[in-house]
Order: sequence, then C-alpha cells, then structure tokens
Amino acid sequence: MKSIGILVFDDVEELDFVGPWEVFNMANEVAGHMGRDPFHDVKLIAERETPVRCAHGLRVLPELTTAACDKLDILLVPGGQGTRREVLNPALLAWIAAISASAEWVTSVCTGALLLCAAGPARGKRVTTHWAFIESLRARGEAAEVVADCRYVRDGNLVTSAGISAGIDMSLWLTSVLYGPDVARGVRRGMEYDPAPPV
Amino acid sequence: MKSIGILVFDDVEELDFVGPWEVFNMANEVAGHMGRDPFHDVKLIAERETPVRCAHGLRVLPELTTAACDKLDILLVPGGQGTRREVLNPALLAWIAAISASAEWVTSVCTGALLLCAAGPARGKRVTTHWAFIESLRARGEAAEVVADCRYVRDGNLVTSAGISAGIDMSLWLTSVLYGPDVARGVRRGMEYDPAPPV
Repeated sequence: MKSIGILVFDDVEELDFVGPWEVFNMANEVAGHMGRDPFHDVKLIAERETPVRCAHGLRVLPELTTAACDKLDILLVPGGQGTRREVLNPALLAWIAAISASAEWVTSVCTGALLLCAAGPARGKRVTTHWAFIESLRARGEAAEVVADCRYVRDGNLVTSAGISAGIDMSLWLTSVLYGPDVARGVRRGMEYDPAPPV
Repeated sequence: MKSIGILVFDDVEELDFVGPWEVFNMANEVAGHMGRDPFHDVKLIAERETPVRCAHGLRVLPELTTAACDKLDILLVPGGQGTRREVLNPALLAWIAAISASAEWVTSVCTGALLLCAAGPARGKRVTTHWAFIESLRARGEAAEVVADCRYVRDGNLVTSAGISAGIDMSLWLTSVLYGPDVARGVRRGMEYDPAPPV
C-alpha cells in the first residue's frame, strides 16, 4: 500500500488540499468496489499536532507530524498565502527536500510550487503554479521554466499544478498513471466530476 | 452582510462542503479586490463543538453549534454517508426546518438533499442528488420530482446539486445570482476553475 502525504500549514488554501484528498480517497473506494485492497494511505501532515487554520479560516486536525514521517511514496504540497511564510521556514524546507529525495512522486498545487522550488525538488525543472504567481516564480529563477496556461506540468517524477482547482485534475491524472484509467474514471464518476461552470 | 451556514456532521463528504466553502470565501476576496466590504460571513455549523470526522477521515472543527444559530440567510447542507444516520436525527431535522423557514436560500450538495427532503424544505419540490442516489430519493416519495443528469436544480429558493463536485458549480451559480456575474467570474478566475478532467 502506497503512502500519500498531504502537507498542511497555517493559511494553506482549503481546496488546494481537499480536492486531491477527495480524489485519492475516492480511489480507495473504487478499489473496494472492484474487490481490491485500498491502493494507498492518505494522511494530512503538519509540523505540529495542533489544529491548522487554513487561508479562509477552516480549521483541520493533522494526523501525522513531519517529525514522525521520514518516508512517503507520494508527497503533495498545496499552496495558499501560508507558502509566503513557510518559504522562510528552513526546517520545513529541509523536510520537503528529504522526503522528496526518496519519494516516487513529488507534487504541488497552486503556490505549493514555491515551496518545491525553495526546498530544491523543483530547481532546474519545468513547473507551473497559480496564474497570478507565474511571474513571481519566474523572477526567483529556480525553476528551468514556469509554464503558463496549463492545468499541470510533469517533469520526471515532479508534477506541479496550476491554481486551486487544478489539483483535482492533477490528482486524477496521477491516479490514472498509478492505477490505470479505469480507476481514474471510477473516481471521476464517484465524484460526479462533470464540471459545468455557469459563468 | 449575509450569513452563510454550512452544516457539517460525522461522515460528511469532504469536497461536498469544502468546494462551496472555497467559492463563497473567494467571493469575499473578490469583494476586497473591488474595494467592497465582504459579502457574507461563512461558518461551519455542527451539533457539537467537538471535531467532526468526515467520510474519508478529515477532521474539522466547527465554528458554531446549531443550538447557537437560529437564523441564516443561506443554508448549505452537504451530503456523504453521514446523511443516512442524520436522516434519523429529529433534533437536526427540526433545526434544518426552522432555519430553512426564514432563510433566503436553502441549498444542498449530493445526498444533502435527503436531509432537506426529510426535514421538509424539499418536500413537494423538484430536486437533484448524487447519481447513485436518484432512485433511492425517488422511492422516498417526498420530492415532487428527482431530476437526473443535471448539475443543480432550482425550485423557488431551494437549490439542490448533484454529487460532490457539483456543489462548486451550484455555489458559483448562486454567487452570480446574489452578487452578479462579474463577481462569480472573479471567483472562477481566483480558483482557476477551468476544469480539464484528464480521463
């Protein structure tokens, strides 16, 4: 069973991590419907055990501390205003770097790419981020290229996605790569993900 | 400033409520960019103050108890496995009925429609729900019609949406009705909601 760790921190953007959380957990439900064992264990990870206060005020309880986690198959780093503070947090950047070194996949949503650039895993790679942050990330000069106008970018085992809702598409893509398109289609059906934005 | 209350309970489906939460909170951000005051206050409401354990294990802290809330402009009832237990909870159904009686809008996502049918606000109305629950909801005979294959259905001040991710589209629609399409488009842009399901 693979381990998926979703990092959370104060002022993390809510949908950045709950979108992928829903996709990956729904994949386990689909496995159940297929008579298979769960594909993975999905955990919220934070530096402390205390409630995390997200960007819009949602308070969530992490399940695991970074200190108690030294290996993950898949790391997901969401974005949000809190990334501007965490990019100056050497302990968290060191943890991201260490986990990423042995992870099968390293992923981000939105401005989570900032942390993957600062921590190292995205340096010299092609990445994307929230549209409003493309120029700022280019100005940092860490990524080889910051790609605009796409939902997600893969470079080797690094997958970065665009803003907020793009994490859902990226997670569906990764589900398809990991477990096959039938599973990913089952997840899409389970989430009734046939989006029809009315404006 | 309008009050939006999002009901949560054990085994509520995570994206059912975090999707709308993101949309409504992003609308306040858009208001700020326009130099306007926040449109509304968005609160998670539960029967108890203790952490709510969602369907896939996410633990969230509510901000307000049902006992402390006797009026809302907009009520949103999400779905999830927990609705099968809460449909037998007379205290919660009575609260939903009382709040709905004076609310400007009464809304649901996914199987939240079950609670709106059982509590009364959706009786004799046209509704929708998660595709896998359409027949069960029809069999209960409370709604006048359970509509399949649409993202959301409006009947008067009642708006019910289809499964899980459909709550995002419904909330964007309601944002457009309440504050105008420019605000809703700003929310869509802020969330980078240009979905592109890869499977």
